[in-house]
Amino acid sequence: MTRYADLNPPARLLMGPGPINADPRVLRAMATPLIGQFDPSMTGLMNETMALYRGVFKTANKWTMLIDGTARAGIEAAMVSLIEPGDKVLIPVFGRFGHLKAEIARRCDAEVITVEREWGTVFPLDEIRDLVKKHRPRLLALCQGDTSTTMLQPLAGVGAIAHEFDALFYTDATASIGGNALETDAWDVDCVSAGLQKCLAGPSGSSPITLSARAEAAIVRRRHVEQGIATASDVPGNGARIRSNYFDLAMVMDYWGDKRLNHHTEATSMLYAARECAKILVEEGVDNAVERHRVAGGAMAEGLKAMGLKLFGDQTSRMNNVVGVYIPAEVQGDAVRKSMLDDFAIEIGTSFGPLHGKIWRIGTMGYNARKDTVLTTLVALESALAMHGAKIATGKAVPAALAAFRAAEARTAKAAE
Amino acid sequence: MTRYADLNPPARLLMGPGPINADPRVLRAMATPLIGQFDPSMTGLMNETMALYRGVFKTANKWTMLIDGTARAGIEAAMVSLIEPGDKVLIPVFGRFGHLKAEIARRCDAEVITVEREWGTVFPLDEIRDLVKKHRPRLLALCQGDTSTTMLQPLAGVGAIAHEFDALFYTDATASIGGNALETDAWDVDCVSAGLQKCLAGPSGSSPITLSARAEAAIVRRRHVEQGIATASDVPGNGARIRSNYFDLAMVMDYWGDKRLNHHTEATSMLYAARECAKILVEEGVDNAVERHRVAGGAMAEGLKAMGLKLFGDQTSRMNNVVGVYIPAEVQGDAVRKSMLDDFAIEIGTSFGPLHGKIWRIGTMGYNARKDTVLTTLVALESALAMHGAKIATGKAVPAALAAFRAAEARTAKAAE
Repeated sequence: MTRYADLNPPARLLMGPGPINADPRVLRAMATPLIGQFDPSMTGLMNETMALYRGVFKTANKWTMLIDGTARAGIEAAMVSLIEPGDKVLIPVFGRFGHLKAEIARRCDAEVITVEREWGTVFPLDEIRDLVKKHRPRLLALCQGDTSTTMLQPLAGVGAIAHEFDALFYTDATASIGGNALETDAWDVDCVSAGLQKCLAGPSGSSPITLSARAEAAIVRRRHVEQGIATASDVPGNGARIRSNYFDLAMVMDYWGDKRLNHHTEATSMLYAARECAKILVEEGVDNAVERHRVAGGAMAEGLKAMGLKLFGDQTSRMNNVVGVYIPAEVQGDAVRKSMLDDFAIEIGTSFGPLHGKIWRIGTMGYNARKDTVLTTLVALESALAMHGAKIATGKAVPAALAAFRAAEARTAKAAE
Repeated sequence: MTRYADLNPPARLLMGPGPINADPRVLRAMATPLIGQFDPSMTGLMNETMALYRGVFKTANKWTMLIDGTARAGIEAAMVSLIEPGDKVLIPVFGRFGHLKAEIARRCDAEVITVEREWGTVFPLDEIRDLVKKHRPRLLALCQGDTSTTMLQPLAGVGAIAHEFDALFYTDATASIGGNALETDAWDVDCVSAGLQKCLAGPSGSSPITLSARAEAAIVRRRHVEQGIATASDVPGNGARIRSNYFDLAMVMDYWGDKRLNHHTEATSMLYAARECAKILVEEGVDNAVERHRVAGGAMAEGLKAMGLKLFGDQTSRMNNVVGVYIPAEVQGDAVRKSMLDDFAIEIGTSFGPLHGKIWRIGTMGYNARKDTVLTTLVALESALAMHGAKIATGKAVPAALAAFRAAEARTAKAAE
């Protein structure tokens, strides 16, 4: 018999676009013993998790719950439940994850309209309004933060535009939530999906999602209770049956709601993780967490610039938690990344599509949005670049980053006076 | 701000139809720090996990991997990837989880043929042959173990029948794997999906799956690489595009295979858990684990009978790991279950559909397929039943169960001589 070693992955500081190192509190939560899925303690924890994520999403939405899968599972659950075959879906694309939404919408047999922008930019509000007015989609789907480009799409006002033209508005906040402002209710967003593995400081594998009353109505209209547990009082909806059972949000609502109708068997350990992620964030204060990401991401950017590196994309639209930086022409990008990983045990990110080989992506998110991780990454990168023969300014990155941290500390101290 | 207590679920002995208490080794594995998804250590662990599950499934299938979701996610991934709209799908139903497969197949727009049997029985092989011969389905989908009835469908010979009539054969082994013999290759099964939360002694949230070369061919014919990462060399398949992106097994293969094409972000903590579940099972020896389940489940059944309780269904076709027992007429089933939970912290299972209120389901699976858990459950149930006024024989259950354990120990000792 082949013998397998005990699980013993190497130490890593994960400073890429995610996943990042999970908060040790989240890791410990996952080691908690299991309880039964309809145990009152379990349904109590499910209800607490719903309440905690209302805080994270900044919403009063009743239907705020978890999809048992990665962030991509949450995207598909939102789209397959909101889209009926033939529906017109408008997707403004400013990076790879816009293409992903178009791809999923096509598999739902939607009539998909994509509008692409140059990578490194975002859509102005008036352009979104023109597009919605012109195309009159049933659903407007838009990334908040697209890690492929590091850009953050402003969303304030987008919900109002969608509703003016009778569209539903869905956003994927996987990469942005917790590290950038997100106001589900104030911005009239009908559905937001997320993941744990970025600014929420958890592992991939659970996707928090929230639905407005408008989204709920669109989904419940298509409710079909599963054969084998349906009773005479379960009147089927009159809309087309949702094409997925696992991602049928009407069924997921019946499982998380008072009916407690059996659907999947809740992934208890991932629920423990998701609850702990939200608890940490809500205890810190979501606004404080966003500011922490703004400061850490800003300090990383200042450090990289001080080294003489050039940042990618419109810096006024950059996510707080990830920065793209051009690879100096005189080095081979993957060789430097390998040095970072092999010599310093620090992971930074490569890129997709048109940016592949051109930029690295460096994250400062969740548990890793800290001063020590930023400074450690900067000194290691400076050293690795120098060893690979890059022409960079040495000894300047850390002072620049520290200055950014100190300026933020001074502002905080002044505000507290 | 509402304060939330630290995560502190009550102690429970989970002796229902699953989930059950996870092995502490699996819980500890989930607390392991994360690594990046394309880190060589991570892809190494993914490859090890594939190899370990080949051992669990008893297969040489290359494509033996994890779906990131609960067992139901694995079922849907198998079905949506194997079924093209309009395909004829034959589903012999002997419990609730047969209905679930029919429900999923209908959402895939298959032409679904179900044949139902009385709950508590299974299909004889010649009946399956007659059905396949008559209906000539593209896919035959069959539960191995259906926890709703506790029955185990014999599968040896079914694959040969399916192939004789040019059908693919899929089985859902969620409830049975690890506790009952399963011979993927020897029984010519084209696809098997499973879950961790039963005899694999883990939490719900990861679904191991394996695909034969025949299943692979059927799926790869429909491969469409995702826009945004497709290159000129990616020739799309000529079959209908798989309707789900998340559950597109062609894409999941490209992620787990040498191409390492980005798809979802692997749920690393659940991968750690799934790997540990398989490692524990393979180290014990899959056949030894099946025997342990047979002995523990048999002892539980003997104990229940000695109390004067009547078992549900054809006992010659019962799963090793769960037994159905009629609720004595003189007690209220849920009240006894509540006493078991509140007074003894032991969970036993209720039932679905036609069996609701008629039988309890008592599991002996995974980490809980042990002598101490069987005896503890029996004495607690005997005490709870007596307090609720059931007319049972007292003081007989433990001796009967112990006798079953001792007979098994004697057989093992004799075999070792």
